[in-house]
Amino acid sequence: MSETVLNASQAVLNVGLLGFGTVGSSFAEVLAASGRPEGSGGTAIRITHVFNRDVQRKRTHPRAKFVPADAIWTEHVEDLLGSPDVHLVVELMGGLDPAENWLRRALTTGKHVATANKQLIAYRGSSLFELAASKGVQLLYGAAVAGGVPVIPGMSQGLSGDQITRISGIVNGTCNFILSSMETGADYAEVLKKAQALGYAESNPSADVDGFDARAKLCILSRIALRAEINPDDVPAQTISHVSAIDFAYAKELGCTVRQVSRAQIESKPDGNKVIARVGPMLVPMTSPIAWSHGTQNMVVTSGRFGGDVVFSGHGAGGHPTAVAVMSDVLAIAEGSATVRLPAKPVEVSGDVTAPYYLRLIVKDRPGIVAGIAGALAKVGINIDTILQHRGHPADRLPFVVTTEPCRSATLDKAIADMSRMEFMVEPPLTMQILVVDDPDTD
Amino acid sequence: MSETVLNASQAVLNVGLLGFGTVGSSFAEVLAASGRPEGSGGTAIRITHVFNRDVQRKRTHPRAKFVPADAIWTEHVEDLLGSPDVHLVVELMGGLDPAENWLRRALTTGKHVATANKQLIAYRGSSLFELAASKGVQLLYGAAVAGGVPVIPGMSQGLSGDQITRISGIVNGTCNFILSSMETGADYAEVLKKAQALGYAESNPSADVDGFDARAKLCILSRIALRAEINPDDVPAQTISHVSAIDFAYAKELGCTVRQVSRAQIESKPDGNKVIARVGPMLVPMTSPIAWSHGTQNMVVTSGRFGGDVVFSGHGAGGHPTAVAVMSDVLAIAEGSATVRLPAKPVEVSGDVTAPYYLRLIVKDRPGIVAGIAGALAKVGINIDTILQHRGHPADRLPFVVTTEPCRSATLDKAIADMSRMEFMVEPPLTMQILVVDDPDTD
Repeated sequence: MSETVLNASQAVLNVGLLGFGTVGSSFAEVLAASGRPEGSGGTAIRITHVFNRDVQRKRTHPRAKFVPADAIWTEHVEDLLGSPDVHLVVELMGGLDPAENWLRRALTTGKHVATANKQLIAYRGSSLFELAASKGVQLLYGAAVAGGVPVIPGMSQGLSGDQITRISGIVNGTCNFILSSMETGADYAEVLKKAQALGYAESNPSADVDGFDARAKLCILSRIALRAEINPDDVPAQTISHVSAIDFAYAKELGCTVRQVSRAQIESKPDGNKVIARVGPMLVPMTSPIAWSHGTQNMVVTSGRFGGDVVFSGHGAGGHPTAVAVMSDVLAIAEGSATVRLPAKPVEVSGDVTAPYYLRLIVKDRPGIVAGIAGALAKVGINIDTILQHRGHPADRLPFVVTTEPCRSATLDKAIADMSRMEFMVEPPLTMQILVVDDPDTD
Repeated sequence: MSETVLNASQAVLNVGLLGFGTVGSSFAEVLAASGRPEGSGGTAIRITHVFNRDVQRKRTHPRAKFVPADAIWTEHVEDLLGSPDVHLVVELMGGLDPAENWLRRALTTGKHVATANKQLIAYRGSSLFELAASKGVQLLYGAAVAGGVPVIPGMSQGLSGDQITRISGIVNGTCNFILSSMETGADYAEVLKKAQALGYAESNPSADVDGFDARAKLCILSRIALRAEINPDDVPAQTISHVSAIDFAYAKELGCTVRQVSRAQIESKPDGNKVIARVGPMLVPMTSPIAWSHGTQNMVVTSGRFGGDVVFSGHGAGGHPTAVAVMSDVLAIAEGSATVRLPAKPVEVSGDVTAPYYLRLIVKDRPGIVAGIAGALAKVGINIDTILQHRGHPADRLPFVVTTEPCRSATLDKAIADMSRMEFMVEPPLTMQILVVDDPDTD
């Protein structure tokens, strides 16, 4: 197998592109616009190989014109991975298989890699970083979280000097589009259809709405920010699909809105650190920056021991913003830049968050409901903060909201199990964590 | 002269610290907390020299305990700069003189430099970067703008792939503290006193309130984001000291608040690019992220051709947040990280911004005022958008507000000169640019 390590003083960096979809074709456009032709000073960057299925069709793509005319278009990945001419593989296909094997092959043969593949970096990142380091090549993945928002380089390079204790973020643009549309009156099913029509959501929206996409990104951020190595499968994810218009109305009354939030926090324990992590719909106070994210915007808030809260926000998805992140990684590699990579350790993960909670119940009206619910909470020692019930709903589907004082989610789950068995309960109760704004210095 | 270049595989990075004030002592604390003692893996980082005036007093500082006991405290900079043991100079004194000569000496003798000195980087950055590159050492300055907000590393590493066309920011925490306090009813003079008492403002507040601090930072950001080399002295700066409570009342009516905004924008011209730059109080729509910054918070918004708007915000000042930025640079140097540095070119600067404007006049009430003002604007071809005048003010000091449709500031200045000569004008008119939210995708 031929080995090809880029020499920093090399005049041209040859890029092999895996995937010519929305992001891949946008990357070709951004690269063409960056004005780094050969001989312009610095290392020139050019696409020499494009791998995709059905390349005949791909070559007619409106952005195919941004690929140099002499580039090789191929349906055989071997043409790209096996070529000693390719210095850098840009992977924009996604998924673990076959991307993992192909990128291992690229790294092993001395090629740099830039990827937007969040699943791959979340699940296999640490072993891939080791492989890259052992081969003296770079593996960059700035596009894997929050697309065009430079939260990965910003944290890696600019916050490495702090001790970050918590990250909270909106890292799934589809869920944010759905929930921020519901905030202004849209219905879940209707806005999901619209998101699908706009190309924001897949025909099977589960990865987005059920939180699997977000938790992979949360694990990537945790590795950098908290230096904690977490298996995404260990992070509890709650679907946003049970959130309804009525929840926004009650949230508003509580000074909040609802967003899909991904959150991970270090909890220092005498027997070693633990990470409390969770992804799901949460009540966000309108005074929190997280409430300001609309549409497909992404936002990440880091809380540091010394630096306090730092907010990054912008366009989390879309071809061009994601291509900017990829292009920035490619430039870093071309310029011979190296990133700070502080060691991360595997830590225990728990989803048992101590916080105030919002409970929304749909009940069949009859005497004794408040007593039943209050009794179930009292039995496990949870204090009620507020009880809200509005007029104008049918008596056989009466929404009824309770907020609790801070309690452990595991404790609350016991009370919920109890309530679910009560005969007046029309559907399973919905619980959402209520975020608390606790950085007074930023106000 | 002895030359000392750090070897990447070296076990210890020795730091010489210039300045043990608020940031210097906070840096010592952050470094001590970062847990990089010798033998812990990676390059250990230790302070070996501290230079300051009156070291006897400094050694009694509560944070002096974070400096290793065997470090040399000195009032003679030669002890530090002349020592081949020092690999990295951390400069936290500020000002051009003597910092410039000292850091030139450090770079020339093969020492890396990390600095928070915005004046130095704004005025002398390009020649210092050249010197550092020629000596194979690093010069990092992440703390020079927006303290603990990683806007410099975030832009350098994460947005280098975009073509940024505009940066807008709140980069002076003192002005933001004053104006955001005025928003909730405080009086300028009173809140300035409070800022001085809290240590946010100097006894001579001119550098902050008159915009000189902010424009140095704007030039640093322009170099990275717009790749434009600008002399800070060429950027028009308008003082915030003429903004009064009445302006906040009228701004609110216009759906805005007032902030000191620093702004630079590329204008493509057939004869080469030009940068339109300005620092001063501006009317900011409440729907803009810039309006959300309160207290001493800093915020920078970049607008990219491909990536759209990206927002960075957090604690811009203070010992600990600034120390985090310095520590992050020190770690980058210790880890042998290199940054992407794209070439910047000197460009022509103009403060002649085409925008809608807010004019606030204080007049002695009499017939013909509206005719006079409208006439002065009509004469130069400026259209009036709104005229606002509220009751309840004394007739001999009547505030009177006009907003214009977009016009050039140079044109407006002519009309203002005209109006200033009108006999009903009690004090010189105040003009402020009105920002327009123009990135609909983020909503």
